[in-house]
Parts: sequence; structure tokens; C-alpha cells
Amino acid sequence: MIRFADRMNLLTGSEIRELLKLTAQPDIISFAGGLPAPELFPVEGMKAAAIKTLEESGEAAMQYSTTEGFPPLRQKIVDRMKAKNGIQTDIDHILITSGSQQGLDFAGRVFLNPGDVVLMESPSYLGAINAFKASEPKFVEVPTDNNGMLMEELEKILATTDNVKMIYVIPDFQNPSGRTWTLERREKFMEIINKFEIPVIEDNPYGELRFENENMPSLKSMDTKDLVIFLGTFSKILAPGYRLGWVCAEDEILEKFNFIKQGADLQSSTVSQIETNTFLEMNDLDQHVAKIKEVYGKRRNCMLKAMEEYFPKECTWTYPDGGLFTWVILPEYMDAKELATQCLEKKVAYVPGGSFFPNGGHENTFRMNYSNMPEEKIEEGIKRIAEVIKANLR
Amino acid sequence: MIRFADRMNLLTGSEIRELLKLTAQPDIISFAGGLPAPELFPVEGMKAAAIKTLEESGEAAMQYSTTEGFPPLRQKIVDRMKAKNGIQTDIDHILITSGSQQGLDFAGRVFLNPGDVVLMESPSYLGAINAFKASEPKFVEVPTDNNGMLMEELEKILATTDNVKMIYVIPDFQNPSGRTWTLERREKFMEIINKFEIPVIEDNPYGELRFENENMPSLKSMDTKDLVIFLGTFSKILAPGYRLGWVCAEDEILEKFNFIKQGADLQSSTVSQIETNTFLEMNDLDQHVAKIKEVYGKRRNCMLKAMEEYFPKECTWTYPDGGLFTWVILPEYMDAKELATQCLEKKVAYVPGGSFFPNGGHENTFRMNYSNMPEEKIEEGIKRIAEVIKANLR
Repeated sequence: MIRFADRMNLLTGSEIRELLKLTAQPDIISFAGGLPAPELFPVEGMKAAAIKTLEESGEAAMQYSTTEGFPPLRQKIVDRMKAKNGIQTDIDHILITSGSQQGLDFAGRVFLNPGDVVLMESPSYLGAINAFKASEPKFVEVPTDNNGMLMEELEKILATTDNVKMIYVIPDFQNPSGRTWTLERREKFMEIINKFEIPVIEDNPYGELRFENENMPSLKSMDTKDLVIFLGTFSKILAPGYRLGWVCAEDEILEKFNFIKQGADLQSSTVSQIETNTFLEMNDLDQHVAKIKEVYGKRRNCMLKAMEEYFPKECTWTYPDGGLFTWVILPEYMDAKELATQCLEKKVAYVPGGSFFPNGGHENTFRMNYSNMPEEKIEEGIKRIAEVIKANLR
Repeated sequence: MIRFADRMNLLTGSEIRELLKLTAQPDIISFAGGLPAPELFPVEGMKAAAIKTLEESGEAAMQYSTTEGFPPLRQKIVDRMKAKNGIQTDIDHILITSGSQQGLDFAGRVFLNPGDVVLMESPSYLGAINAFKASEPKFVEVPTDNNGMLMEELEKILATTDNVKMIYVIPDFQNPSGRTWTLERREKFMEIINKFEIPVIEDNPYGELRFENENMPSLKSMDTKDLVIFLGTFSKILAPGYRLGWVCAEDEILEKFNFIKQGADLQSSTVSQIETNTFLEMNDLDQHVAKIKEVYGKRRNCMLKAMEEYFPKECTWTYPDGGLFTWVILPEYMDAKELATQCLEKKVAYVPGGSFFPNGGHENTFRMNYSNMPEEKIEEGIKRIAEVIKANLR
């Protein structure tokens, strides 16, 4: 008789990925995925990079390579993290992963025994919750407000909870809430972390996509005790289809990630790595990111304006300074899952918010993505969702 | 204070991957890696496939996609498994993975709790041992001879061992031994498996690379109770740099692999998948595999002939009908690790055999790869190793 591991009792498919299948039909206006806008992908640039790579180093690109990743690409990541995130590091502290999702999975495996505690913002990224679940931890949610994690709550939890093995946070344009931590919260957070000496997973997939106001320093750039593990990715600034992300951490921690990577898949795609490196040599990524920010910024404006116009006053939502998402809170008596079904009948989709809370509840919330739909569809989609919400008002 | 998960106590870097770094210098004759011959990679063909893919479906190739993988590629895998391995299946039973290494990692996570037992051939693939270790199992080695696993030993172990959760085997041109199971062994194996109903991981990275004699049926093709999980890969028949493999299994098992894949990295590279699919549409992979087999067959002949000529009569080695490896047994008083150091001074490398036994011992063995070196270097390398062996004879 086939018997599975205990962890399999906890794992079910991601609701988002199941929903994405439903919303793949072209006539659906989908705010459900976290998809970048494909019309902005630098297809011509990547074609040129692919040709150059295969002509100049085809055999190396198609061969096995080191687990750590392609050194010139790691050097470019080092340079970029210095420029964008204020992080001082070198290539010996970079491990290339298959998207930052793989960094999340590895973090769970490196730090968590069954029953260990992981802290995360409430709400937090569903993909991280799912990745960590495979290590069978207990999740403790730290309350948040529009300025990020509530530091007095964090401190209270750390002072009263055993076996906290790591803290997972997305300080910039958080998924799902779109919120960004203030500088004051970041400083307080590092103070608390230094006191309790708990490893921090700082997930930063959206940090470069800021539409307004000043960049905030990354936690990693404020880290004096080597406690922060920074996860970056090319998925949102270039394209997700190459599956390239990275982990930046101090020696001992990065070595553990490397060991897990060896067993997990030996290495990330050599072709993806060398082609991406070639693209970065042939193009100005900053220029490309500027284009993305312009388009996403307009889409955010369009979505927020349409919500303002059509959503009933009983709803509230967040104001994201960047990134891909805003977060809607319905009246408490509403169930965003039930409304999602009604919305699907009107050919419009979002992700119900309950899945973003590892311990459940909060069924009156949902996540809205604005990066993947053109403005006219955004307005039309918001109208349709507004109709559904209004029809459910008591 | 940073505390790692218990599993990290078991994980150290793969000796092979560390050794590969040492042997990367161009003046070393290396029989250490499991590398395909890069001069055979279809670089021009993949360049044409990359251009076509990015011109015709660049946006889709660079976007997120489903966890299961690109349907046309899965259909080609289904067709190929039918033609080459006698397996009847459909695309709903295929999950694309990042190399078959990822399938090994997932197998451990799907089936193994700490302390559970996994059976494997003695010796077995080091990368599988490392992947499974992350799930903290007990390894029980099943003795083998030149015809494969010893079935009476397997039956004895199954009858007397609790908590056997899976059996890992490489029936064709095994890594590291180069051995292939006879038809009789395969039939007896399936009989025993059906009786005990234990899931089987059939790892088949080399099966298509047969230089002589008839193909053997895969275990999966003889599986009447849906117990066999078949792992395949493009790494040895096309190129490893794209990191594409697959898992073929029945519904419930494949669903568990899919759940793990969602958390592990969402999906394998869309670009890699679509470009590989395009390559397969534009080219005859069988013709390409025929070329690989011809070259590797000659290299095997060259290596075996040189061993015959130069190795002292105190050594024995296996005769592989295909694949990438032969396996050498030294006199019992010799330590292949010590000899490896002496060999490295003579600029020649192999992998000491001890690492391929999860429970240790067998230090008088080593693995030789013949796919990655031209014939003149094979002969020269064998001469040098022979000198070292002879200098250590008592």
C-alpha cells in the first residue's frame, strides 16, 4: 500500500494556480494572477541575446555548470543590489535559484523542523505559505497596518513564543497587500531582530517597481549581524519564463542553501543564465524597468480611480506606491469566495484573500492585480466587480 | 542565534560537484563528471529553435505558465516513452521537472518521513542519495551483481524491514556501475513489488544510449498496479543546460508531485520547454541520439581496451552495454580516495566509489566516465591511472 509522507497531508494545490487555469480564457478580465505584462517583455532583445549566446558559447550554455550559478551573472546581480538596494556584497554570497520561489522553498528546508515557528506578515504571500508548509511549521501571523508590520506586536510575539526559527517579510509593495514599510518600521524591525537574533527572509520581487516617492533601504542593507537572507528575481523586471532568481546571504547560511540546491536540481538552467547575462550586457535594464514602471503606474492609477468611482463606500483598499497589487477589504459579512464565483459569471476574476492568511479567516478580503490588464479592461472589470459587491450589500 | 533544521546535519556538499570544480582546469583528463560530450550538442539546431520560438511565441515563452508543463512537449514525451520504453500513458500523467534530479528530490519529499526506509541498489547514484537525505530516511542497500539487483536479497529485506516507503532503482546502464538488469530480474522485481506494494522510483536517464544488444522493457511498462514512478530527462539525449526532465506516474502520486512542484519553483522554465519542443518539431531526435551512441560506444570501447591493456590483473571492472560509466574494483587493501589524490597529481581524475554507498564502505572502488573525453585522452588517462594503481600494489 502506498503511504505518503506526513507533509503531504498539509499540501493542497495553490488556489491561485488552480484559479489561473480557470482565468486563462481570453474573454476573462483577470486581476487574479501576479503576471507581468507580456507585451512589455523584451522579446527582440532576448532573441538577440539567445543568438549571441548560442553562437559564442553554445556548448557551455547547453552543458552542466556549477550549483552557485554563472559568475558574470552573479557579478551583475551584486552590482544591481548595490545600486538598487544599497547592499554591499560579492559573488561568493550569491546563489542563483529557479525564481525566488525556489529561495522560499529552500529557506523552509534550511531552517524548519516540523512544529518550528515561522513568523510572517498578516496577510502574506500564498506561495511562501505553501512552500514553508512542506516543512510542517506552525505559522504565527504578525498584525500589520498600512505602514507595514506592527513592531510592538512583533516584539510581544518574539518575547512569548518558543522555537521561532525565521521571519518572512516583503517590506516593499507587499504581496498581497501592496503595502510598503516605513523607514521607522524598518529601523525598529532590525533593532528587534538584532536583539532576538532570528534569521529574516527578505523577499523583494517588486522593489524596483516604484511609481512614486523615495526608495526605502532594504533590510539587508541595514543588517549588521548577518541575519537577513535577501531574495531577488528577474521575474518582474525582465521575464518570469527564464525562472531566474537569487539568494544573497552570509557564508554559513548560503552554504546550507547551496547544499539543498545540489540535491534539489543540481543547478538552474545554464542557458537561461548565460542568455540573461548576455541580454544585460547588450541592453540597459534600467531603461526597460522605467518602461514597466510607467505602464504599471498608469494601470494602478486607472484601477484606483475606477474603484473610487464604482466601489461602494463600504469597501476600503490600499494605495500601493509600486508593485503589482492592491488589497480590498469588503464589509465583514461578505465572503470574497462567494463573490468570486459571482464575478466569474460576469467574466472577471480576483483572488479571495483568505488564502493569504496561513491560519485562516479574513474571508471578506481579496487581492487585485493591475499589471496584466490594459486600462480599458481594468475599468470595465472594476465596474463588474462593483456590481457584484453592490448586489451583496445588506 | 541561528538554528538550522535537523536535516542540515546530514547534508554536506556532493563530493562529485566539489571534485568537478577541481577538474574544470583544461589540462586535467577527467573521468569524474557525468557530463555529456558538449561537441555533440545540437547548438545550431537549438539556435534555430530559439529564434523560431521567440519570433512566433516570444511572449508566451517568457511568461509564467502551468506547473504541469507545456502540453505539446508533454505529448512528445508521451510519444517517446511509448516508442522507447514501451510505456502507455498520456499527458495527464506527465509533470515536467527541472532535470530528473528534481524528480528525485520530490520523490523523497512525497514519500519519506524522518526514519522511513528507502531501498536502493548497492552502489547507487550519489545525487539520489543526497536528494533523499534531505528527508532524513534510513537507507537500506540491496546487494547487486552484474545482472542487477539480487531479487532474493530484496525479498528478504522487504519481508523483514518495517516502514519501507520506496525503492529507488536505475535498471539501465546504472550510475555508477554501468550495469543493466536482465529481463528475468525485472520480471521477478515486479512480482515482488506487486506483492509488497511499495512505490518504485525508476530512474532512466541513460536508457536510450544503448550501444549493443536489445533494449530491455522498462519496469514502468511492466507495471500493472501503478506502483512505478518513471523519471526521464533530456539531459543525456539533448543537453543538460536546459534542465528539463519529467515524472510519469499515476493520478494520485503525480498530484502529490505537482503540489510539491508548486511550492518548490512554481514551474520549470517556459523558454526551455517551448524551445525544446520547437527543436523536436524541427529535428529528428533519433538521428541525434544515434550520433551520440556512436561516439560514446567508441569511447567505451577505447576505455575498456585501455583498461585491459594497462590495468593490473588485480583490478576488475564492469562491461556497460550503454550509458556513460564503468565501475572499477581495486584490491581490497587499496583506498580509491588516496589513489585519487595521487591521480590528481598526474592530472587525471575519477570519482572514488565510497560516496555511492549510502552507508559507507567499499573504499576500493571508483566510477569512470567515458562520455566526456576524446579517445586519445581516454587512453592516456587510463595509462596514468594504471601507473598509480601499480605503484600501490602490495
